[in-house]
Formats: sequence, C-alpha cells, structure tokens
Amino acid sequence: MKKDNNYSVPGFLASAISAGLKKSSELDLSLIFSQKKAVSAGVFTTNRVKAAPVLLSQERIKKGSLRAVIANTGYANACTGIRGLNDAIQTADIAAKELGIDPEEIVVASTGVIGAYLPFNLIKNALPNLVKNLSPNGFKSVAKALMTTDSSPKMSYFEGRAGGHPFHLLGLAKGAGMIMPNMATMLSFLLTDINIDSQTLWPIFRSAVESTFNRITVDGETSTNDMVLIMANGIAGNRRLDMSDIKDFERGLTDVMGELAYMIAKDGEGATKAVIIEVNGAATSDDANTAARVVANSNLVKTAIFGQDPNWGRIMAALGRSGVKMEEDKVQIWIDGIKVVDGGIMTSEKEESKAAEKMKKEQVTITINLNQGRYKDRIITCDLTYDYIRINADYRT
Amino acid sequence: MKKDNNYSVPGFLASAISAGLKKSSELDLSLIFSQKKAVSAGVFTTNRVKAAPVLLSQERIKKGSLRAVIANTGYANACTGIRGLNDAIQTADIAAKELGIDPEEIVVASTGVIGAYLPFNLIKNALPNLVKNLSPNGFKSVAKALMTTDSSPKMSYFEGRAGGHPFHLLGLAKGAGMIMPNMATMLSFLLTDINIDSQTLWPIFRSAVESTFNRITVDGETSTNDMVLIMANGIAGNRRLDMSDIKDFERGLTDVMGELAYMIAKDGEGATKAVIIEVNGAATSDDANTAARVVANSNLVKTAIFGQDPNWGRIMAALGRSGVKMEEDKVQIWIDGIKVVDGGIMTSEKEESKAAEKMKKEQVTITINLNQGRYKDRIITCDLTYDYIRINADYRT
Repeated sequence: MKKDNNYSVPGFLASAISAGLKKSSELDLSLIFSQKKAVSAGVFTTNRVKAAPVLLSQERIKKGSLRAVIANTGYANACTGIRGLNDAIQTADIAAKELGIDPEEIVVASTGVIGAYLPFNLIKNALPNLVKNLSPNGFKSVAKALMTTDSSPKMSYFEGRAGGHPFHLLGLAKGAGMIMPNMATMLSFLLTDINIDSQTLWPIFRSAVESTFNRITVDGETSTNDMVLIMANGIAGNRRLDMSDIKDFERGLTDVMGELAYMIAKDGEGATKAVIIEVNGAATSDDANTAARVVANSNLVKTAIFGQDPNWGRIMAALGRSGVKMEEDKVQIWIDGIKVVDGGIMTSEKEESKAAEKMKKEQVTITINLNQGRYKDRIITCDLTYDYIRINADYRT
Repeated sequence: MKKDNNYSVPGFLASAISAGLKKSSELDLSLIFSQKKAVSAGVFTTNRVKAAPVLLSQERIKKGSLRAVIANTGYANACTGIRGLNDAIQTADIAAKELGIDPEEIVVASTGVIGAYLPFNLIKNALPNLVKNLSPNGFKSVAKALMTTDSSPKMSYFEGRAGGHPFHLLGLAKGAGMIMPNMATMLSFLLTDINIDSQTLWPIFRSAVESTFNRITVDGETSTNDMVLIMANGIAGNRRLDMSDIKDFERGLTDVMGELAYMIAKDGEGATKAVIIEVNGAATSDDANTAARVVANSNLVKTAIFGQDPNWGRIMAALGRSGVKMEEDKVQIWIDGIKVVDGGIMTSEKEESKAAEKMKKEQVTITINLNQGRYKDRIITCDLTYDYIRINADYRT
C-alpha cells in the first residue's frame, strides 16, 4: 500500500544540518543511521570518472551490510585525487567514531561542483551536532539537505506485508541535472525494515533500478557521483520471504523507485513538463532502448515540446540518426494518443492541432511504433527550456 | 590564394528569387547553372530518414556530371512520401525545360520544416523568372536565399593555379541548427572552373568533407537533408593535373570548405562563441573522434562556455561517459592554452581565473590530452544559449 504522510521506518534515524557548504545557510549535510546492522546493496555510476565517495562506498558495500550513510551537497568531491579520497575516508571515520560504529559500516555520498576540494573543516565541525540531532522524524530534513538544483525534496513511501508482518519502505532521492543514469543513477537512499537476505535483495533491487532510475534522462549527461543505496534492517520481524511476499516487496520497491525517478525527470533543470517516450515494435530490445533514448535526449525534440509544438519531423530525424533498424514509411507516432504520423508521413493538420492542444499539459507522452518487431521500451525525460541554460551557465557563480 | 571580394566562377550563373515559401518576402528559391557540363560529386546525409531531394539527387549524381542545382528554403520536403518525391522530380523537370537541359542533369536541395508538403505551385510559378534572372553575379543572392535560421550568408572563395592556368573555387553553405554532419553535411555547393576528372575529384572531395564539414556539430542532430555538392566545369582549360596541381586544389578546397564549416559552427543557433575541441593522446582514432564529439555535444559543457565559466569538471564527466579508453589521473586540459587540469585534478584557482578571462573571447579552444596513445582529432562547435531555446521552441510558429 502506497502512503504519503508517514516518512519514517522503524529502526532508522536521520538528521540534517547546515554545515556552511552551500552559499546560503540551507541544510547541506545529512546522516542516515540504522540502529541495527542493515542488509544493504548499492549501484553506482558507470562514468569512468568516479567521485571519491563513489570509490569508497563501492568498496564498503561489498560486504552486504551497513549502519550509516553520510551525504553532503555543494561539493561532488570528484576529480579531487588522493586528497579527495582521504577527505571521504576522514569524514566517514569521524562520523563512525561519533556514532560508535565500525568505519567500514558507513558509506559516503556527495553531490555538487566537480573538481573543488571538500571544505573538510566545515564538515568536521558539523559532525557532532549532526549525530546529536538524529531522530526517527529527520527524513524530511534529509530530503531537503540532498537538494542542489532540485526544486523540491523527493520522497516516496510504501507499506506492505511480509509473512503477515507489516513492513515499511522509505525512498529519498535528489537529482535535476547531469542526469542520464546508466546502470546506476543519481543519489537515492531506500530504507526498509523488511527482514531479507542479501541474495534475495540484490536481484530485486537491481531489476527495480533498471526499470526506474535507468529509464530517465534530463540531459544525457551521466554524473560522476550517481549512487542508489538500499538498507534493510529486519526490524519488521517477518520470517523467510515466500514468493507472494517477494512479489509484494518487489512491487513496493519498483513503485517507490519509479515515483522518485519520475520526480527527478519532471524536476529536470528548468523543465516545465515531464515527457514519456514510448517505443514499440523495435527489432531488438537494444533498438527499443536506443530509439527511446535518442529521442529523449534530442535538444530539438525537447525544445519543440517546451514550445508545445507537435513538430514530429524532429522525432523522425532523431529516429533516423539513432542507428536502429527502421523503415521511414513504416513509422507511426502518437502524441498523447493523437496519431500524428502514419506510414512515415503526417496524418492531417487537424490531428496536429489536436496534438498541440494536448501538449499544453504538464505531462506529454510520445508513442512511437517502428513496426520492425516485438520489442519495446520507455524513457522518461523533460523539456529543454531557457531555465536549463540559466541554471547551467551560472552554476558556479 | 584566398580572396574575399570576387564571388564568381567562369561558366557558372546563379539566380535567387522570393517564391513566397518564407513568411516574409525574403529570397527562398535559388538556382545554380553551369554553361558547360560539369564533373560533379556529392555526399549526402547518413540519417536513415532521407528527404525527397536527397533521394533524387543521390540517384542523379551517380553519373558524375551535372548542369544545375535548384534549392528551396522553408520546406525540407522530408517525411513527405511519394508526393514529396514527385514534387522534387516535377521541380527539376520544369526547371530543366526552362533551362533547355536534360532533367537528369539537375539536382534538387531543400531545407526547412520537416513533414510539410512543398507549396509546389509557388515554386512552379517562380521558375521562369528564376531562370530569366541567371547571371554571373547572382551568387551573393543565392547565399542569402539558402538561409533559414542562419544569421548571415556563408561564402568562401579561392584562386589557384593548375598547370599554369588560373582556376577559381567558390563555396556556398547554409546551416545553423540540426547540425552534426556525419559522412555528409548541411547544404553546401562548391563551384570551380578547374579541369578535373571524376576519379581525381572524388577522393580529394571526400577527404575534404571528412576533415571539415564532418568535424562540426551544433546540437548533435544529423539532418534529413544534408548535402554537399561540387561541380567542376573545366573552363580553366588546364591539362591533366600533376601532383603539385592536385596539392594546390586540395588545399584550396579544404580551405574553402573549412571556412564554410567554421561559419556554420560559429553561427550555431543562438551561439555567442565558436568552440574548438581538440583531443590528443587518444588510444585509437575512433576514441579521439568520440571523445571530441561527446565533449562538443555536451549541453553542460556548452552552457558553461556560454557562462564563460572554466568548469572543467563537466569536461571530465563528459570524457568519463564517452566510453573511450581513459584514466582519470592522466587527463590534462587546457583552455586557450591555460592548463586547468593536470593528472585529472585542478592545477590551481589562479589558472582557472586566467582561463575565465580567455573565455570572454568569441572563440574558445579546449585542448584535452588523454595520454593514452598517439591519436588526435578536432571538432568545432558553439556554446548553448537562451537563443537556441527561443529559436527552436518557436520554430514553426
């Protein structure tokens, strides 16, 4: 069952603080703590340039369990060499000491400007209060502290039952630009009290990432800091999960991650609309994914959507350069259910006008049938607007 | 010798007219005519969605000689099916009749909105006057008539000597958006009076395209209508070209096409700067090309350049997701000769400030050394600005 009001999970505490990393005195340092050792899994950016916190966390998650995550915004701690790695390790060390846990049980996440060194003293000075403030109701503050160019905090919540025991699942995420997760995603933390072992958790988690975070793009830019973590503390007290329990948990996880992924795409830097690109009838599953991704990343398609112009010629041109198997005269395109292209050419100006009307909404779905085979895929993206330029031309100033 | 003032070539006539295809009464239909049969070659878009004029011209150029080119702006005549192909054939037929040549000797080029049918009657009515107006001094009008979102006409001129005879080479081009030529390019016409055979012309032409038009990108969008044509009428009267003549012609052609390609990149829709991305030390030539292209097409890199911000972290992130062989700690980056990255990390804030100063100019060169091997490549692009959004959100309205 999907719920919206209760943002807590038994056994998890959270806290956020302003450490002075952002220019204003907004929240910028956050901590999530599990009172019990939590079965954990994570996926990380596939960018060959990986931030120090990614390198450290990737190593530490291998053991399959964690107690805490510490995250900072304002600084990505990427392209910072040995000094950056040392800053990440020191941050975890001091936090672990304050929490009274093994440093190997804490991971670090960072997001912000690439290339600048962490202002480590600010973080160090803030850590004691960060730990002191831990509370079961701290998650809304954490969601706020994770924001950079995000326009609102991103949370999603689910309650289910496993072996007759209720369990809870809370998801947090941040992300608005430099978004084209690939085998990984932007920062997202998923917390649950379900009792689950690593072997059961991993494939469910992996496949949920694949169908949610790995199906969004804002600007085709895969970040150096992408990270999704899940922690399960077992406090729900259920026994070994049976098939129906697993299905329930899987659905909950996919729902929560899907909602967070949609929030990220819709909150794409400067975006006014969420845009769903559906490709059907592709010759292979790779073709379906590539076609959807190329259309979703096309600046010309995205500016036309911002202009509320059903300029389907740009969709055809994007498909044509995508490299997928296609025949121009077999392509069909719908905009929010209005068929604008059949056999590769315009259906009618009347249908185009109807489509233009539909494009005034905050969500637009473009459906493409390549009529080459039986494969399909779906990517969620957003439009490209003046504000994307404003945000990114002025990002560091 | 490069010259700027004289835009004519012996034996070639040109004409442009306002046929009513553009909303204002600007020039929009143009004709280039060779008084003698001209040895000709062409390259065309690799987009799988090809405009009707591309399909027709691709077929007709196979014979290796042409007499005329007719070009319209306002309508791409792409995604227009059989009707579009028929419109292209009819246009050529009527023009050929007016010119008194074989329809097989005329090719057609179009640029503008994809998906709309050509207003064929407007073209038909304009053709007699278009032919009547042919003149040796008509090329400036043709360059204007080719413009769509271009901010200025694009012409380049060269005079050389072959076997003691002077020859002339005139290049015309259009293009500002939907620009990432690949194995072909936007509309460009090259006219020369050199006496050359097809077998000699083709490899010189092909390699000049590869190093000029195929090395620019505005927005990563390969058009459905890309076309470069060269016509050589032989009027210069030189005998068979020797090695030194060929070198001279090759240099002239590469100069002219290089200048036109630079003009297109610099005139990228909304651009304020031309940006040269140089990649050195790549492991393979494909890696060099891919790395330069991914950086050149990165919205985040391009918006940072618009903001005059030496935000090299975005260059690192783009390299990291490009898939090329790289080691983060070997990368070096210079902005207009100022080294901002060494060993994958910032050189100093002082150097960054110097780079920021350099970025105020109208041309910015970003040089990357991957230190993986001996291959290099170079792509010319532009920044991404508010005006790209304005132009493309409102394109059809």
